[in-house]
Amino acid sequence: MAATGRPTMAEIAKEANVAISTVSKVLNGHTDVSAATRTRVERLLTERGYRRPRAVRRAGRGSDLVDLVINDLDSVWGLEILSGVEEVLEAAGHALVVSTVHNRQSLTRRWVDSALARGSQGAILVLSELTGRQQADLDRRGLPIVVVDGVSQPPPEVASIGATNFAGGYAAAEHLIGLGHRRIAAIGGPERLQCTRARIAGYRAALESAGLPADRQLVRYGNFMHEGGLRGAEALLALPDAPTAIFAGSDQQATGVYEAVRRAGLTIPGDVSVVGFDDLNFAEWTAPPMTTVRQPLHEMGVAAARTLLRIVNGERLESTRMELATHLVVRGSTAQPGR
Amino acid sequence: MAATGRPTMAEIAKEANVAISTVSKVLNGHTDVSAATRTRVERLLTERGYRRPRAVRRAGRGSDLVDLVINDLDSVWGLEILSGVEEVLEAAGHALVVSTVHNRQSLTRRWVDSALARGSQGAILVLSELTGRQQADLDRRGLPIVVVDGVSQPPPEVASIGATNFAGGYAAAEHLIGLGHRRIAAIGGPERLQCTRARIAGYRAALESAGLPADRQLVRYGNFMHEGGLRGAEALLALPDAPTAIFAGSDQQATGVYEAVRRAGLTIPGDVSVVGFDDLNFAEWTAPPMTTVRQPLHEMGVAAARTLLRIVNGERLESTRMELATHLVVRGSTAQPGR
Repeated sequence: MAATGRPTMAEIAKEANVAISTVSKVLNGHTDVSAATRTRVERLLTERGYRRPRAVRRAGRGSDLVDLVINDLDSVWGLEILSGVEEVLEAAGHALVVSTVHNRQSLTRRWVDSALARGSQGAILVLSELTGRQQADLDRRGLPIVVVDGVSQPPPEVASIGATNFAGGYAAAEHLIGLGHRRIAAIGGPERLQCTRARIAGYRAALESAGLPADRQLVRYGNFMHEGGLRGAEALLALPDAPTAIFAGSDQQATGVYEAVRRAGLTIPGDVSVVGFDDLNFAEWTAPPMTTVRQPLHEMGVAAARTLLRIVNGERLESTRMELATHLVVRGSTAQPGR
Repeated sequence: MAATGRPTMAEIAKEANVAISTVSKVLNGHTDVSAATRTRVERLLTERGYRRPRAVRRAGRGSDLVDLVINDLDSVWGLEILSGVEEVLEAAGHALVVSTVHNRQSLTRRWVDSALARGSQGAILVLSELTGRQQADLDRRGLPIVVVDGVSQPPPEVASIGATNFAGGYAAAEHLIGLGHRRIAAIGGPERLQCTRARIAGYRAALESAGLPADRQLVRYGNFMHEGGLRGAEALLALPDAPTAIFAGSDQQATGVYEAVRRAGLTIPGDVSVVGFDDLNFAEWTAPPMTTVRQPLHEMGVAAARTLLRIVNGERLESTRMELATHLVVRGSTAQPGR
């Protein structure tokens, strides 16, 4: 064992009964190692807690590349994070490699191998999913990461950036309660996502503070897209005791709620008040302009890139978790309940 | 002179009275060459028409990187092109480096130097501006490029991808004429852009075909963003003989037209019909849903990436210019003129 209590590459090689160069190949993602050997070496690396010494990790090929991996390039939501990341990296003289996992949710082995092969300095993961195994693999192979808005709270040793989703959900519901609404519904994104759970929890806490009952029928889950909002709102508006206000969970879902309200022959905010979440560019162009909870996506990208560069430069982070503030932007889609 | 009639690096070095390695440094963007020498060598390279032999160009560092440079990451317009490019490159095993010029319009020297230094295989430029000098520089230094939607028709030796903007402008105006409109206005993007000029020319040709007079007052120019449409429409609606229909030049400008119409106390399409251009994701979420000219942005990104890979692989292009078809999507923002 080395002084750190962690094994050296030579110790792993000896225990696996392979050459040191084979261990190195596994760590660098080379493909000329048999599957059986690879599996054996990887298991040992994990079990023994092997980590590449920092000096070796960063030597690489002197590349200036930093990676960003995102679920998909299908929403201006991701674009705003991307623009923040790009701004910081450009100023620091780094080039940004962009990949998507096309909603496969998780990093592929092939991606990790090629990022290491091109000498990437680190990766920002705007991803729903990162398994513990993948995270251990990245760590072991020396690729620093920062997670933005992960599906679950990442383990404490992983740096992550998010927004104050609980406070945002609370503010949305509090605003509607303040206007006089009592039947307030919420449509979350996918239920398993950390940000969805925090927003819905915030909404529930505001209702509770105001002494309003929690009606399970009034909480639905969607997909953060237009369709999710449309379907959720159609179900809500069909209830015998339909809500007078809907917290839509995202701006794209709010556009779906707008459509459901229109289809039902109702008006916003005369019959139904609607609050979005994100404050994407189009939120002020909808009719009526959308009241929404602003999430500082560009700034989250900026923070993620700065945090990653600090890790790459060997600086110590005061906190591995950073949540940026959300705030309510009141426009025309909310008002007192109708007559 | 080499057999091609173009000079070799040795001939340039001799004429400039420098070492061959100095010419190589200038070509590779190294900074340890004095400004005076660099200028002298560059002038000679341009005057003598030096071009790097393809074999040398592609040897590089065996990188799998391809670059995309875009004006700015501020619109879902660019995101759709980006997603098409990423799709093709990922399938081909290339990694995509994304840079923006932050609306400085043009490539910086620093960008070109670092793209060459990281061994980029080529670049897709989603840029307003590419000067002849820059284009010659990229060519000489062996970085293949494909231009998407350039400010001006690129020279014939440069591969470029666009949309049938003239046909799109024609289809928009023809649709409005068919509904019975006679006072039809148009708001273009920035006047100097090739795509703006083609859209406005198409609009004018449709009016002419229908025997309608060309009223210069009815043509305005904006910036492709919400504000440009708002300002243009406010001016148009203030005319003594205001138009009954507005071709808004882009979807984002159309949202500005929507706002101007609302502010004037008028309705869409009752009082004013509106046609956008692009068919971005939010076009079906506006109220009313937007009639617009669909531009296949994702497919343009796909075509640009495929074209670049063909150039990198040394294939011959049948045509250096490719225009993808636009088509009209009729939704709720257009109708017969009021009462």
